[in-house]
Amino acid sequence: MTAQEPPKLDDKSFELSSKGLSDKERTARLGELKKYLDYYQEHFLGYQVNQDLHEIREDLSHFLGVHTNNIGDPYVDSNLATHTKPLEKAVLKRYAELWGIGPHDASTSEQAWKSAWGYVLSMGSSEGNVYGLLNARDYLSGKILLANPGADPGLLMSQAAVSAPYLDTPTKRANALQPVAFFSQDSHYSVAKAAHTLAIPTFGEVGNKYYSEFREYETCGYQDCWPAEIPSNDDGSINVQRLVTTVDFFARRGHPVLVVCNLGTTFKGAYDNVGHIAKRLQKEVFDHYSMGEREFTVNTKGGKPIKGKRRAFWIHVDGALGASYLPYLKKAHDAGLLDGEQVDIPDFDFRVEQVSSIVTSGHKYPGSPWACGIYMTRRKFQIQPPPMAAYVASPDTTFGGSRNGFSPIVLWNQLAKHPEEEQVRRIAQSVKLARHTYHKLKELGKRLGKDLRPGYTPETLSVQFLQPNKHIVRKYSLASVPIDETTTMCHMFVMPHVSEDGALKNLLEDLETDGKAFEQDGTGGQAAPPVDYQASETAEWQALLGTDRGFM
Amino acid sequence: MTAQEPPKLDDKSFELSSKGLSDKERTARLGELKKYLDYYQEHFLGYQVNQDLHEIREDLSHFLGVHTNNIGDPYVDSNLATHTKPLEKAVLKRYAELWGIGPHDASTSEQAWKSAWGYVLSMGSSEGNVYGLLNARDYLSGKILLANPGADPGLLMSQAAVSAPYLDTPTKRANALQPVAFFSQDSHYSVAKAAHTLAIPTFGEVGNKYYSEFREYETCGYQDCWPAEIPSNDDGSINVQRLVTTVDFFARRGHPVLVVCNLGTTFKGAYDNVGHIAKRLQKEVFDHYSMGEREFTVNTKGGKPIKGKRRAFWIHVDGALGASYLPYLKKAHDAGLLDGEQVDIPDFDFRVEQVSSIVTSGHKYPGSPWACGIYMTRRKFQIQPPPMAAYVASPDTTFGGSRNGFSPIVLWNQLAKHPEEEQVRRIAQSVKLARHTYHKLKELGKRLGKDLRPGYTPETLSVQFLQPNKHIVRKYSLASVPIDETTTMCHMFVMPHVSEDGALKNLLEDLETDGKAFEQDGTGGQAAPPVDYQASETAEWQALLGTDRGFM
Repeated sequence: MTAQEPPKLDDKSFELSSKGLSDKERTARLGELKKYLDYYQEHFLGYQVNQDLHEIREDLSHFLGVHTNNIGDPYVDSNLATHTKPLEKAVLKRYAELWGIGPHDASTSEQAWKSAWGYVLSMGSSEGNVYGLLNARDYLSGKILLANPGADPGLLMSQAAVSAPYLDTPTKRANALQPVAFFSQDSHYSVAKAAHTLAIPTFGEVGNKYYSEFREYETCGYQDCWPAEIPSNDDGSINVQRLVTTVDFFARRGHPVLVVCNLGTTFKGAYDNVGHIAKRLQKEVFDHYSMGEREFTVNTKGGKPIKGKRRAFWIHVDGALGASYLPYLKKAHDAGLLDGEQVDIPDFDFRVEQVSSIVTSGHKYPGSPWACGIYMTRRKFQIQPPPMAAYVASPDTTFGGSRNGFSPIVLWNQLAKHPEEEQVRRIAQSVKLARHTYHKLKELGKRLGKDLRPGYTPETLSVQFLQPNKHIVRKYSLASVPIDETTTMCHMFVMPHVSEDGALKNLLEDLETDGKAFEQDGTGGQAAPPVDYQASETAEWQALLGTDRGFM
Repeated sequence: MTAQEPPKLDDKSFELSSKGLSDKERTARLGELKKYLDYYQEHFLGYQVNQDLHEIREDLSHFLGVHTNNIGDPYVDSNLATHTKPLEKAVLKRYAELWGIGPHDASTSEQAWKSAWGYVLSMGSSEGNVYGLLNARDYLSGKILLANPGADPGLLMSQAAVSAPYLDTPTKRANALQPVAFFSQDSHYSVAKAAHTLAIPTFGEVGNKYYSEFREYETCGYQDCWPAEIPSNDDGSINVQRLVTTVDFFARRGHPVLVVCNLGTTFKGAYDNVGHIAKRLQKEVFDHYSMGEREFTVNTKGGKPIKGKRRAFWIHVDGALGASYLPYLKKAHDAGLLDGEQVDIPDFDFRVEQVSSIVTSGHKYPGSPWACGIYMTRRKFQIQPPPMAAYVASPDTTFGGSRNGFSPIVLWNQLAKHPEEEQVRRIAQSVKLARHTYHKLKELGKRLGKDLRPGYTPETLSVQFLQPNKHIVRKYSLASVPIDETTTMCHMFVMPHVSEDGALKNLLEDLETDGKAFEQDGTGGQAAPPVDYQASETAEWQALLGTDRGFM
């Protein structure tokens, strides 16, 4: 408990009636909100959000006075002229460069189809995950692609016919347009939710429904039943061997496969080694069944069918946290700026041929006043959008209609203001500070005579430790995760706004000097915090699904 | 063509390299953007967006300097303290009041389950339509509800068992958990897209697949095949008779039904008469098959199953444009402020017992710098969220993860600043000005000796006329819709920022004095504008689907 009482917001004082509020009252309420937010911004440590945003006020407040909207495709101007598409395109081009793919090229040359396509997300990475998985579903189940020009638009929503030598039984042919999803137990909860939303079954659902009568799950090393997710290693990354074995089981039965990898899991901030995963899957599964060689036949308006090849797999990278800074961290690592950390930064981007789509959050890194993000894919995999373009004069290639036009200004301003050299230095500092904090917590535990169970995965930004009391949790916006029935852990993320002084120093002091820091008042430490709804009853399902599914 | 050349943005000048930009360059680029946006804001007439936002700069720019995030349920604070949930709750309470439902009550009394639940959308109404339809799908197909406390969480994603007297054949029982979607040809394109995303089949898809061998569509008045959508009347509203007949066909076969109504269609701004639709469906279909009386059996952890009744229908109101201002317009109408317009404003909100969910856009009305909106439902229909709550300490009851925390500040400030009495006056002025503009266009056509084909549906904000040349379309952000192979219409929306002077006056002058206003340079008037991708080839499918599907 600290002396200073943190500011609180009172629901009642913000209530509105049909009469509205006088200017004086309204200004006073907004003043309370400012005071509240300023305090918690200053102490913000728990979540993966960069709060170093103060300069945006001065830089961009003009744009609060106009409605901007990037409806439709970023690369085709709509009739709605108050858009910011040139800035959006610049941001996308820069990310394409960071992620090892040629910038968007709208021509129809062979090279152009290999270029990037993407857009700035209005919601954040949850939107990108839904949209990535939607594209994967439609691609794998044979919907018509933009790269199928001349296809009969009457068939837009129907499936192209598939054939491949390995689809040599009726069962395999029946499965050939039924994708199955694979992701680890450390995946963000939005991934499982996206699969449910899109009605894409996971391997667990398909397995338990069709392949459990003869305990087939045992051949993949599972006991009792197919799990909902692929097991993780202790550091939070996916168990690659289990992934390969499990994917093989379903691929062998003709199913196209959708694999979601993580860059920066929500609890441990761990990175799946996407490059290594892709290499193993390619060699041990995709090549084995010739899954790169499925032939699709698309009917055309003219009557002459077009044939084209498609993969029977899609690798989506949920890089909500990591995909934005890993390119910089890699450079920091290669330049030896990390004081000799020995862990390799994995390959994760479009340099890995098997990667089909990547999503990242802009508010996590480089930082934004509200959630936003980037979805990027290879242009050749884009699905043909519904033909509603004429109205806004820009094709409906994104998930929603209206799109936030201010987010691209924020991202553009961040990239313009903070050059690569600065970003590399910044992220190196953050990683070193995270490691340093981990050691500090270890030492603190010794001094307090208490195991604070500090945890840290090398070259990540997350530091975990035993959950302190609810006042400290609240003061520093710490995120808590019950890891078993008696222990709750929490984490902080050492984002660029965190320095050795300031909030971090204060937290360590609070933990050391507050005699009750780890004493439980029924909400902290060894007991899970009370959560509304059915959380207590859902512990079982949660255990089944794994617990490292947090914030986005 | 006008003398003044409108400002343009050059993609090249906004490009970013790894070096970023100097402060001078960056500021210069942002200056160009300001100039560009200011110009097009001043001339903005085409889309349903309120551009009267200038004061937001001064009121709210402080909040650009902090990341705010309303992750999780609005009614349960998360550990991420930089949120704005008190303002979000105040906004939701005010909308609940406007929409005739009790404000959210989290207790478990019978009355509390009848209260509202909702949240402020990060994307806009597209997100709300997807989320509304997802809830409808899961509700109708028997997923577990929040109102089923004690249900076995292991079954969260499985279906409760259904029984009802009218499900008296194997076929009906097989259909009983397979919802079918119905919406009009004037529905926004996001509705069809949401149905595709969620794999909810439309009556057209189900009908053509299962009920066309004996030309069953003829019994519902269709020729050749089942259409994708219910036909509209000339004014843009849904043909209620056709809707009732078609819904009856599928309900009779055991299907639960999902009906989407529109308030403010995208082209004509027309309102479906939700109250009238609900009354007819209830009397002629729902009562007839006792569709309010389906019994669901939900397993519990304790082993004793819970039984509960659910409807076999869900009415979702896509009020992207209209649901925000119709409550005010109704008051203006009843107070005689509309100079004697005789059209009744339809009942559309939770006062209509059959309405399950409503969505509206905040950037259309009352106005916001970026897309946002509100989703609201009856609490008793909420689906049990995935049990991931502990991490953020707030239940995962919304569509995404991170949620824009600035949008609730904008909406709160609008409602606080502009009391109901002002809103009523405002919307009355806009409706009168829209009608006035329609008459002006008629007169202008007479003077020019040319039929401008002006169109206006009473008590709406949309005015349609023949598309002028591309310079005028661009200058005023007009939205264009090809209505047949030789004619393209456009519309403007007379939103609160539009006055009789200013942009509207300038447009009418341009149309009158620009000798080439309706002369076609290959892009305007009688020819559809050139649209990238396969637009020209998709005209056929577009015709099939109807054309009034525009902006959101």
